[in-house]
Amino acid sequence: MTPDLILIDGKCIAVPAVSALDRGLHFGDGLFETMAVQKGRVRFLALHLERLKEGCGRLGIDAGNFEAIWEEAVRVAKEQGRALLKLIVTRGEAVARGYGPKGAERTTRVLLRYAWPADSEARGAAGEGVPPVLRVGVASIRLGENPALAGLKHLNRLEQVLASRERQERGLDELLLFSSSGRLVSGTMSNVFLVHRDKLLTPRLDLCGVAGIMRRVVLREAARIGVLAEESVLDRHDLDAATEIFLTNARWGIQPARIGPLTQRLKAAIEPLLEEPADG
Amino acid sequence: MTPDLILIDGKCIAVPAVSALDRGLHFGDGLFETMAVQKGRVRFLALHLERLKEGCGRLGIDAGNFEAIWEEAVRVAKEQGRALLKLIVTRGEAVARGYGPKGAERTTRVLLRYAWPADSEARGAAGEGVPPVLRVGVASIRLGENPALAGLKHLNRLEQVLASRERQERGLDELLLFSSSGRLVSGTMSNVFLVHRDKLLTPRLDLCGVAGIMRRVVLREAARIGVLAEESVLDRHDLDAATEIFLTNARWGIQPARIGPLTQRLKAAIEPLLEEPADG
Repeated sequence: MTPDLILIDGKCIAVPAVSALDRGLHFGDGLFETMAVQKGRVRFLALHLERLKEGCGRLGIDAGNFEAIWEEAVRVAKEQGRALLKLIVTRGEAVARGYGPKGAERTTRVLLRYAWPADSEARGAAGEGVPPVLRVGVASIRLGENPALAGLKHLNRLEQVLASRERQERGLDELLLFSSSGRLVSGTMSNVFLVHRDKLLTPRLDLCGVAGIMRRVVLREAARIGVLAEESVLDRHDLDAATEIFLTNARWGIQPARIGPLTQRLKAAIEPLLEEPADG
Repeated sequence: MTPDLILIDGKCIAVPAVSALDRGLHFGDGLFETMAVQKGRVRFLALHLERLKEGCGRLGIDAGNFEAIWEEAVRVAKEQGRALLKLIVTRGEAVARGYGPKGAERTTRVLLRYAWPADSEARGAAGEGVPPVLRVGVASIRLGENPALAGLKHLNRLEQVLASRERQERGLDELLLFSSSGRLVSGTMSNVFLVHRDKLLTPRLDLCGVAGIMRRVVLREAARIGVLAEESVLDRHDLDAATEIFLTNARWGIQPARIGPLTQRLKAAIEPLLEEPADG
């Protein structure tokens, strides 16, 4: 699937391209956001841009005018009922050779809009009121640990590329990833939640992994409806012992891998937020 | 410094750019080589392209026609006495959304030529016969460990970007990097060698780091002139206890950080290879 719209620095140009000197290309020196559009509105836009802002701060990227990014996303979403937006922000074109940024770079922004993927539609229609269950395995690759990059949705995604290749080869919906020291981290394109004795657990993301917006929404909504939830250091034993497992991302919302009552309760709680997005 | 020449898929276009859908930009899904040109010839071109080929194999990228890449590099080098070439090869434009490659991607190749940097010239002229000594510190950031990516000169370089920023802030020539488990790995843009009791040691790169071409040449030349050399697991103690330390990359050749007789012997041994590059 290719996007039906690409904006580069706000402009829709004939051959959408970025400079061959862009530090996003050379070093993966940038960040991205994947956002779902429902009924012409971007789900959790404020949370996405807040994360982007925080990421820019941590990488020392001056992302400039966040209001312009906000308005662009709102405008582009309005034209579609249901879609996916991908926003890439890089440090911009290199002003010098080598890894070190000079501080004079000007951010490059790429906004891509995709039609809502068909597989997900099929999944949603699979059962009346009974959520389908994802087929999930454990990836053979482990994630490197680096606190300086942990949590960020940055552009260094080769680990996810290799794990996704394995996922495709094994014909599964998702693979779970452990870190080099054996911690459970996430899926290749999702965050993971476990249920242990009526308590919701999700991996702490202080060494690696992406702090997903849907993960944040689930933690927030769990607190709202009185479900005990915790970010923890989890290992293979915790995964095996979980009575329920579900995965989250912007597109899936909550998708169970080992279904149970707490998953269904949380799914019901966030459904209205997904179906009727607020502004931001 | 900006390049004086950029070729994209062999063509020199008016506005050098790559597709906004390129997986190199989206995920850092690709590899690169930095090659020095001396007297119109690419130093160690065969070794660079061998490493690129191996990297493509490990990432499952079909790099296509290596003879064409070879010829392009030779041709572009011929036009200049002294220069640096940067070759980027990505998996190409995404044919679908998401991390997983589909196998139908067609590689993107970017070749950039830069004038030889001035700082290096100054360094070479600093002393007659007495090699200048690099000012080196230890980076606060540690490298994540991932055997699947270790050794590769891939495009996921945020760790080097952050470490280089620190290097610039501290006004040093280079920073040495340790891995998350405490292993000595490399510099931000160089490989590192230590001397311990007349023995040459360089970090094993099975968990992280880039297996540099100059590192390989130094190991080869050490064997040729009868210097005992070993790839080892090294830690902070080994670094502190080293009687000599030197760094290597395509541009520097051998640059001492703690000078001594073995460094000078090796420097003398590789000098002719750097000054009069063979074809390949």
